[in-house]
Amino acid sequence: MTQAPHQQKETAVSAVLYAEVQQFYGRHMRAMDECRVADWTGDFMPEAVFATNARPEPQRGRVEITDNAEAAARQLQEKGTLRRHCVTTLEVQQGTGSTLLARTYALITRTVVGGRSELEFVCTCEDVLVRHEGRLFIQHRQVYRDDLPKD
Amino acid sequence: MTQAPHQQKETAVSAVLYAEVQQFYGRHMRAMDECRVADWTGDFMPEAVFATNARPEPQRGRVEITDNAEAAARQLQEKGTLRRHCVTTLEVQQGTGSTLLARTYALITRTVVGGRSELEFVCTCEDVLVRHEGRLFIQHRQVYRDDLPKD
Amino acid sequence: MTQAPHQQKETAVSAVLYAEVQQFYGRHMRAMDECRVADWTGDFMPEAVFATNARPEPQRGRVEITDNAEAAARQLQEKGTLRRHCVTTLEVQQGTGSTLLARTYALITRTVVGGRSELEFVCTCEDVLVRHEGRLFIQHRQVYRDDLPKD
Repeated sequence: MTQAPHQQKETAVSAVLYAEVQQFYGRHMRAMDECRVADWTGDFMPEAVFATNARPEPQRGRVEITDNAEAAARQLQEKGTLRRHCVTTLEVQQGTGSTLLARTYALITRTVVGGRSELEFVCTCEDVLVRHEGRLFIQHRQVYRDDLPKD
Repeated sequence: MTQAPHQQKETAVSAVLYAEVQQFYGRHMRAMDECRVADWTGDFMPEAVFATNARPEPQRGRVEITDNAEAAARQLQEKGTLRRHCVTTLEVQQGTGSTLLARTYALITRTVVGGRSELEFVCTCEDVLVRHEGRLFIQHRQVYRDDLPKD
Repeated sequence: MTQAPHQQKETAVSAVLYAEVQQFYGRHMRAMDECRVADWTGDFMPEAVFATNARPEPQRGRVEITDNAEAAARQLQEKGTLRRHCVTTLEVQQGTGSTLLARTYALITRTVVGGRSELEFVCTCEDVLVRHEGRLFIQHRQVYRDDLPKD
């Protein structure tokens, strides 16, 4: 608790870019929650890495990410579970090179029709985003579920 | 799960419009949660339709929407319940004609003073917004509570 | 419930300012949640006032705010608790003079590793923000926890 206060200004990233990242997550999370797996995994670069403390090893490449996403979507649909990734508290910074660093908090809810909606997990997400063919893609994703050990 | 990845770009809606829609919901939800019914229903066009899977029939017109909103506000106040509509994960698209299509996830919390805050519902909301006299209004609202059957 | 509908337009605050305030909260809340106390309290003006219905008296000045923040951070770290302030539903208005009035809803979650994440509190926050040396600072903060009496 002895660090100096940051000097960072909020103007480092333009309002245009900030809104674009918000739109990106709005579309991206809806695709996942509606089990449109190809839409969701289409937001990752082909060589993207997706690391999470819910798995022992990072997922490497869109093919592996897609396989896991399809399995997860199947599970949700078999159980009749609705899951929502509610994205909040976005912070966007310039990353290295031409990348963007986007940090979010996600409240993940779980509902079975006829039951009550529950807070299933709270996650922090740190994405490295790159622009390719005029739009944003995820190059690297690091997710931490608060309820699981970080390492 | 065999659909092609979407080609949509995030630049379809300007940052100015995206921020305007965010401000709209900030004000709109606060009006509802603070039981300022006229402020809240004043955001609907006179002929607006409000459909939700929590009611068998859509509410048609601002007068009907207002009657129901006043009844709901009275109930909250009689029970001493605070309700918050926490809006997240906004996605805005151009709709047909000059309309906007705004999709949100809402986490609705319920608190009685002295008790614990609870997640009451999770809703998805899809609004058709129109510009009229220089500001946005709701022309059509479709809300789905995740815990109730969709049809 | 007899008030006239508001005439306010969403264009009162620019998209640039709205995005800047969102970035501010993204950084500010993360600093608090990661127990980087100096980063967090560095967002208050030296003479800032922080009032909350969780304390009998407002905290006056950055020094007092820092003392309390350090105590809170220590408690969290001793108990191994992760807390997240998930900011939603931002509304920004011009305040008096050159200030901004920023209203948010915060969902505060609490997690102990190995347990389940819980909704700990729901708060409304009203900040008076001022621009100083090219960035935003908090001049006055009023927080209300929904589960505690307002006065």
